[in-house]
Amino acid sequence: MSIEQKRFHTGLPENLTDRFANRALGMKASEIRSLFAVASRPDIVSLAGGMPNLTALPMEVMAEVVNKLIQDNGAEALQYGSGQGHPKLREQICDVMALEGISAHPDDVIVTTGSQQALDLITRIFIDPGDVILVEAPSYVGALGTFKQYQAQVVHVEMDQNGLIPQALRNAISQIKKSGRKIKFIYLIPNYQNPAGVLLSADRRTEILEICHSEQIFVVEDNPYGLLGFDRPSPNAMRAEDSENVIYLGTFSKTIAPGFRVGWALVPQSLKEKLVIASESSILCPSNFSQLSISSYLSDQPWRAQIASFTKLYKVRKDAMLESLEKYFPKGTSWTKPEGGFYVWITLPPEIDTNALMPKAIVAKVAYVPGTAFYADGFGTWSMRLSYCYPTPERIKEGVKSLGAVITEEMERRQLI
Amino acid sequence: MSIEQKRFHTGLPENLTDRFANRALGMKASEIRSLFAVASRPDIVSLAGGMPNLTALPMEVMAEVVNKLIQDNGAEALQYGSGQGHPKLREQICDVMALEGISAHPDDVIVTTGSQQALDLITRIFIDPGDVILVEAPSYVGALGTFKQYQAQVVHVEMDQNGLIPQALRNAISQIKKSGRKIKFIYLIPNYQNPAGVLLSADRRTEILEICHSEQIFVVEDNPYGLLGFDRPSPNAMRAEDSENVIYLGTFSKTIAPGFRVGWALVPQSLKEKLVIASESSILCPSNFSQLSISSYLSDQPWRAQIASFTKLYKVRKDAMLESLEKYFPKGTSWTKPEGGFYVWITLPPEIDTNALMPKAIVAKVAYVPGTAFYADGFGTWSMRLSYCYPTPERIKEGVKSLGAVITEEMERRQLI
Repeated sequence: MSIEQKRFHTGLPENLTDRFANRALGMKASEIRSLFAVASRPDIVSLAGGMPNLTALPMEVMAEVVNKLIQDNGAEALQYGSGQGHPKLREQICDVMALEGISAHPDDVIVTTGSQQALDLITRIFIDPGDVILVEAPSYVGALGTFKQYQAQVVHVEMDQNGLIPQALRNAISQIKKSGRKIKFIYLIPNYQNPAGVLLSADRRTEILEICHSEQIFVVEDNPYGLLGFDRPSPNAMRAEDSENVIYLGTFSKTIAPGFRVGWALVPQSLKEKLVIASESSILCPSNFSQLSISSYLSDQPWRAQIASFTKLYKVRKDAMLESLEKYFPKGTSWTKPEGGFYVWITLPPEIDTNALMPKAIVAKVAYVPGTAFYADGFGTWSMRLSYCYPTPERIKEGVKSLGAVITEEMERRQLI
Repeated sequence: MSIEQKRFHTGLPENLTDRFANRALGMKASEIRSLFAVASRPDIVSLAGGMPNLTALPMEVMAEVVNKLIQDNGAEALQYGSGQGHPKLREQICDVMALEGISAHPDDVIVTTGSQQALDLITRIFIDPGDVILVEAPSYVGALGTFKQYQAQVVHVEMDQNGLIPQALRNAISQIKKSGRKIKFIYLIPNYQNPAGVLLSADRRTEILEICHSEQIFVVEDNPYGLLGFDRPSPNAMRAEDSENVIYLGTFSKTIAPGFRVGWALVPQSLKEKLVIASESSILCPSNFSQLSISSYLSDQPWRAQIASFTKLYKVRKDAMLESLEKYFPKGTSWTKPEGGFYVWITLPPEIDTNALMPKAIVAKVAYVPGTAFYADGFGTWSMRLSYCYPTPERIKEGVKSLGAVITEEMERRQLI
């Protein structure tokens, strides 16, 4: 390899390459980043991002909550706090989780800088390079990034419209065990999955818990969207059934607002000490300012009604997207029908490469996330994720219409229609 | 080893031990934690913690700043933000660093959840297990914890009242190179060091930069206290002299308030991409709410006057501590004389073990941090760190008086006086 190639490849002066840790050699910005920079232009309908829609949040009220917090309790709110998180907020988090059938003790809750940090800490305490993590096929791009950073081997397990398929899980475990690798945990998003938008059925939850318990595989249950079911509540959390083998992740990013960066992990007691130490070494302590803002809001404001108004807002947008998909997407394409959350997963004919299609979509003033982002193994070229959470229903219709035209044209060009 | 011992040792069901990553096996709460829990009782004078004193912070003003932020710009402040940090705050951070001679571009600044997270990320991208990190002897306990978590080998380099000794650095490098290990970086706190309270002299800064540049060792310059000089400004930051080989860490924890958890790293361009990716995988993005609160405060409030009022407050406390040490500490003990920051480093006769002394101090209603906390290698048994930042001058006098009596009694018992 010539020096020029090496420089091009790493973006670094030659002598730097061997100064990094092994885990850092693979840390490169994805090629898709530059496209997303374009996609944030206001003339483009972005169906790509998963940003919560804050138009339903009463800013006057939020401003008053933080104002009062600092006036009344500024000396604590602006000071360092506990590495595990504020005791009062940890109690309130238990109340929130009770809505999904979880009975928990505040001592087992660790507050994190968004649930992303909880993912990072869990991976940190479990994964040696080469250890296996099982995930849904497809799975959350942010989790895949973290798992890669700790040099885990990610194995995808098949799902359908009812979520992860238990028999596929059994098969995957058996194959991996034969190869002698260690499976450390399975990472699942049971409710309105990101990116697939599907709900894991209650009976499958039980079956998966049984499989994982008997195989000594921890279940990491990531549940950002569980309270955002459109027409009925989601089934009980998996953690409600199994407090020994489930690590539960929650967040206020979708039920209040993401700018606070307050998430949490509810963990089996046997893991708590190590996770708190890992968190202290990572950030010292989560922000008291953010934590107590959330805590005050939960104490003094009608937070359940607020979640209901978010859900209503998202349902209108979901309807707009599904109606537009019916209307504008060509025959030969299919999609999931979410009962909650933010996302629809689109499957195109296998001949279509959604990465290659992206520049054409941008020209047509619409953006999405190509399916490969949600696989660790290059799979997903003929799928894409659409988000309906952020734009107005009118913009959603406009975006789906444009995207439908781009896909139709591509399918015609390839004589698939 | 019997099962009972194993359980006692790890605090875990037996079968869990081999499910953790190697790096997690050493994650254990220090024995001193339970003592610190006691030390937080209000009847005990804590000279242990390094909590900034927020009595000088105008809470009315802070409340108004965040109130206005959410009213005017809540949709952005409460939303997800950039992984690298908010562009406006990164510009303002450059203005803050200019006070210490640094000329920087906002593109090279990465905002982190306190500078602790910057430490974590730097260690993550550089350290494979067994790689060497050089640190001052003694050094910041939080940094040592992070370095241990990434399984670095920490080597302490001798310091005196003018900071790290360049010749000791040369010797250490030469010895380590002989043993074939890789030195990835040196971690330094040049200003009013934690825990030693000393200032690295300007000429030594230059000499250390030259040594590290020629040896291809990055300098991680951690500077939380640089703007808190009592009688004169600290020398220019090391980063002001060398933008290629210095990774600079800053924080608003000591100049505004720690509850926001806003710190930053200013890095050579060649490192930025990897650090941003590492940060995204760790926390997705830093809190817009915290960042924009700080940004609004910097825009609209007299922040330099605020730092001056903090400095004045700390100087009064430092004087109270040094006067009390002169008055109440026995002959045979010595201490540093800080020109800024939060800490005094005490050296006792080598026969005294400050860990063993701690329960006696607690009985006498005073707490400190034993010296061993600041070494990776068990050294430091006859030293301790005292903080003067938080208690009132009266409480400081009371605490030092009590501690002096405990030490005097112990020295008499051992016939050292």
